[in-house]
Amino acid sequence: MKKKIQNLLSGKLKLQGQFFIYFAGLVFFVILFVSVAIFYFQSRMLLQLVQEKAIGFTRTLAYTSLNAILQDDYITLQSLIDSMMGGEDIVSIAILDSAGRVMAASEPERRGETYRDLFTLQALAARQMLIQKEETAAGRELWDTVVPIFLLNRQIGIARMKYSVQDPFEGLIHSIIIIGITAITISLLLAWQFSRSISRPIRKAVHLASEYGQGNLEASIDLSRKDEVGELVESLNKLSAKLKALIDEQVANENLIMMGEFASYIIHDLKNPLSGIHLLSDGLHRKIPPDSPLKKYSVEILLASQKLHDFVERTLDISRWNRVNLQSV
Amino acid sequence: MKKKIQNLLSGKLKLQGQFFIYFAGLVFFVILFVSVAIFYFQSRMLLQLVQEKAIGFTRTLAYTSLNAILQDDYITLQSLIDSMMGGEDIVSIAILDSAGRVMAASEPERRGETYRDLFTLQALAARQMLIQKEETAAGRELWDTVVPIFLLNRQIGIARMKYSVQDPFEGLIHSIIIIGITAITISLLLAWQFSRSISRPIRKAVHLASEYGQGNLEASIDLSRKDEVGELVESLNKLSAKLKALIDEQVANENLIMMGEFASYIIHDLKNPLSGIHLLSDGLHRKIPPDSPLKKYSVEILLASQKLHDFVERTLDISRWNRVNLQSV
Repeated sequence: MKKKIQNLLSGKLKLQGQFFIYFAGLVFFVILFVSVAIFYFQSRMLLQLVQEKAIGFTRTLAYTSLNAILQDDYITLQSLIDSMMGGEDIVSIAILDSAGRVMAASEPERRGETYRDLFTLQALAARQMLIQKEETAAGRELWDTVVPIFLLNRQIGIARMKYSVQDPFEGLIHSIIIIGITAITISLLLAWQFSRSISRPIRKAVHLASEYGQGNLEASIDLSRKDEVGELVESLNKLSAKLKALIDEQVANENLIMMGEFASYIIHDLKNPLSGIHLLSDGLHRKIPPDSPLKKYSVEILLASQKLHDFVERTLDISRWNRVNLQSV
Repeated sequence: MKKKIQNLLSGKLKLQGQFFIYFAGLVFFVILFVSVAIFYFQSRMLLQLVQEKAIGFTRTLAYTSLNAILQDDYITLQSLIDSMMGGEDIVSIAILDSAGRVMAASEPERRGETYRDLFTLQALAARQMLIQKEETAAGRELWDTVVPIFLLNRQIGIARMKYSVQDPFEGLIHSIIIIGITAITISLLLAWQFSRSISRPIRKAVHLASEYGQGNLEASIDLSRKDEVGELVESLNKLSAKLKALIDEQVANENLIMMGEFASYIIHDLKNPLSGIHLLSDGLHRKIPPDSPLKKYSVEILLASQKLHDFVERTLDISRWNRVNLQSV
């Protein structure tokens, strides 16, 4: 999974997709962090609130039930307990005598039962309030608060209240889930929009580079930015200008190259007529008697044509060598 | 402000900074949204919890105080009220008789006072529980719950409790602020890291483009990606390869260009010796009598040298034209 994400982030996806993954990751992190933290803080606060309520009730119950216990007034105790039931968080209320026998309870059928569990025994022996947490078979957390009832210094019973923080906890989780899903949905839409905005100018510059790379040096875009994208467009424009200049130079040089080739053909063409002149002047030279006044002319013509012939031969040698040299480049 | 951000986002900042602003914006939005939503939901839930508690207490107080009211038993009423005070959310408790006179209160000095305010009159006339919200001079919100006390069908007084949801609200705001600041801090660090990771490959490719733009065609980077950055590097490599090829061609052509220039100088150099031959053969031709067997040679030499001379002149004309043409490109 981590490998896959790394692959995506290292360029298997288009930039927009990569940016989106980063945004989404950040959003998920923020929402997860905030949700967990809020749940932690708020569940503690809710527990405290519910606990304060339960403690207050139990203390009031312990105080107000004193007379009814002394008079064994079951009706009053039951009415008292009934008046306290109501909130969804209070599960059960009971008043036990000093032997652990139920004198009155929110579930009237329990009256007369005797509790012998450890917590009841501890509560009966205690001289102050006790709180314990217990878990039902269904996994529900219950809190159990006990306040001893005193007649002067003698403990004559306990007021006991079981309550649950389940409902406010569930409400808390419910609202966190609704808020989280809404926030994630809106954020992902925003993230998509953001990743589009971020990648658009980069895509434009990349498109320009691709046009240049395919030889369309006339392509251009309208982007005046001072960031890396602006830098990129500037560098691309420099590169394309260089390419254009080189291509222009190439075109201009073609004339010179053509001329060079043309000249070397011409020199080649000169060779035969020059040889002709050379042969003719040689023939003439032989036929003119050595004492003739014409001899001077024929000697000069012969020498000049000989020189030209040699010169052309040498030039052709050089151009031949150059051509070989050229092909080996 | 909006203008400024738009400027920043449209390229006055480096890419990393722009990305960071987008990330930060998204994070602020998410945290603001979640905080406000959580506060809204949770403050309603807290109000409900505190209200349930207050209502429960007031009802219990109304029920348990009945006997004490009938017997005008101030001590019992006061003890009852004192047993209920304790949580930080309960501000005051009072029991009023049917005339609005305070029989007992959490502030004992108020005993004997008679309340004639509108809410008290409404409460005394009501046959069920009433709740109102009031605001203290200090801007603190207080809730006031009243439960009528009945003897059979006759109202003999009211139990009244004032409470505040200030503390749990403040705790909620406090925890939201702590969580929000922590989340923003961590997110901004992450966002900085993310924006670095995102911009790094782009920066690398832009650097490559800049190297190429400055003429360093040997530059290269090691990036194998399938996204726009990979495309960009590919296009850049194509561009630099084209530039390199053109430059190589240019170097290769330099020989040909040199040769062309060399050849045109040679042709130029041929002109004078050829003119010499032409003049000499013309002189010779004139000196040889028309009936001489040598006349044939001189005629041929003259014609050949005339042809060559004309040819060289024409060639020079062409090469001169080419050079002019070249300079006008």
